[in-house]
Amino acid sequence: MSMATNEPSITMSTTRRSVAIVLYEGFTALDAIGPYEVLVSLPDTDVYFVADQQGPIYADTGQLALVATATWDELPHPTVVVIPGGAGTMQALAHQPLLNWLQTAAPTVEWMTSVCTGVFVLGAAGLLHGLQVTSHWTSREFIHQYCAATYTAERFIQQGNIITAAGVSAGIDMALFLAQQLSSSQTAQAIQLAIEYDPQPPFSGAGDFQQADQALIDETYTVLSKYRVKG
Amino acid sequence: MSMATNEPSITMSTTRRSVAIVLYEGFTALDAIGPYEVLVSLPDTDVYFVADQQGPIYADTGQLALVATATWDELPHPTVVVIPGGAGTMQALAHQPLLNWLQTAAPTVEWMTSVCTGVFVLGAAGLLHGLQVTSHWTSREFIHQYCAATYTAERFIQQGNIITAAGVSAGIDMALFLAQQLSSSQTAQAIQLAIEYDPQPPFSGAGDFQQADQALIDETYTVLSKYRVKG
Repeated sequence: MSMATNEPSITMSTTRRSVAIVLYEGFTALDAIGPYEVLVSLPDTDVYFVADQQGPIYADTGQLALVATATWDELPHPTVVVIPGGAGTMQALAHQPLLNWLQTAAPTVEWMTSVCTGVFVLGAAGLLHGLQVTSHWTSREFIHQYCAATYTAERFIQQGNIITAAGVSAGIDMALFLAQQLSSSQTAQAIQLAIEYDPQPPFSGAGDFQQADQALIDETYTVLSKYRVKG
Repeated sequence: MSMATNEPSITMSTTRRSVAIVLYEGFTALDAIGPYEVLVSLPDTDVYFVADQQGPIYADTGQLALVATATWDELPHPTVVVIPGGAGTMQALAHQPLLNWLQTAAPTVEWMTSVCTGVFVLGAAGLLHGLQVTSHWTSREFIHQYCAATYTAERFIQQGNIITAAGVSAGIDMALFLAQQLSSSQTAQAIQLAIEYDPQPPFSGAGDFQQADQALIDETYTVLSKYRVKG
């Protein structure tokens, strides 16, 4: 893809949809890759990883980089937007090129979605006013202030053409729902079977903060404390 | 990391464990990223993406690349090996540098694991003789011939220090079990809560091939047919 002009080099197609997964330094990888693995399996769909520039973008562990395949200018009007969360969200929600791109994309996008703390980027773009939304459970108390929205403890929640998902792994569930909306129940179920998504967590209920005791909550904050923006 | 000598440039540590996630052209991203997101959250743990050379390695959709951070020579004795599956498995299982590396690692590794069709690489390295193993459900009929092992329809199965997981998303469940083995139940549960893994698939049972009717099986093969090795 070329940066030679200001014209987008990814042509809008009437027959193929484009999914733009946003990358920024300090994103959480599974937030992005869960929806990617589901949505890339839809027919007639191209997935792009969109960032300031093409090339490696580091996740919040500093131990993994995904390769961005498009810039904001190259994909101004995607069909679907997915914004992952991560330790870098606080920088991302103040990153004007990303916010400008979201405001350009919003009027034409079919679905605007977030996973985990990615919701704060949608909030900063002014897209969530008065809505019910969800996020990673540890950030629920900040939703009202940053998003002018109300936190709801759902796996994911749809409001019009906006879907927000809970933390990290919730993006898989959200994306299967989205696959159904974009295609059919049968295709979404086929994708679920293709990724053999028959989850059997070894610890029943451990993924739900509402069932956790204080010791588990405390240890989880210790786990989360290692995530950061690389630099 | 330097390639200036044949000495491994990642020093074996007595206090930190290393997790080597194998990359090859045509791997399935969620196979790798599910275990990554769980295992990178363990204390005192470094995760490396290991391949023929450092740099971008394309997944089986051709629409995503992960950045390899170490070569075989640089990490000869990891604590944990994770081999993802994908459309590129058939090339990977015949790739001698990878097989040599596995045979070097096997005597010293604490855990040798695979997700999805990654099991065939372990089989090609001669590590599964006579074991019960699992894989992506679509490849179950090939396990006996390629791995000299017996397919079992489990989410994941442990045999000694070898754990094999079913397709794609099963790597998350396997990695949480492995996190418990490497650390404690409390830490593994904290990781599960950190990634908010409280799965709620929109289609109950659709991820289990044993519950699927022929129309769903057929459509799933159509979904899977788009995966390939880039090139």
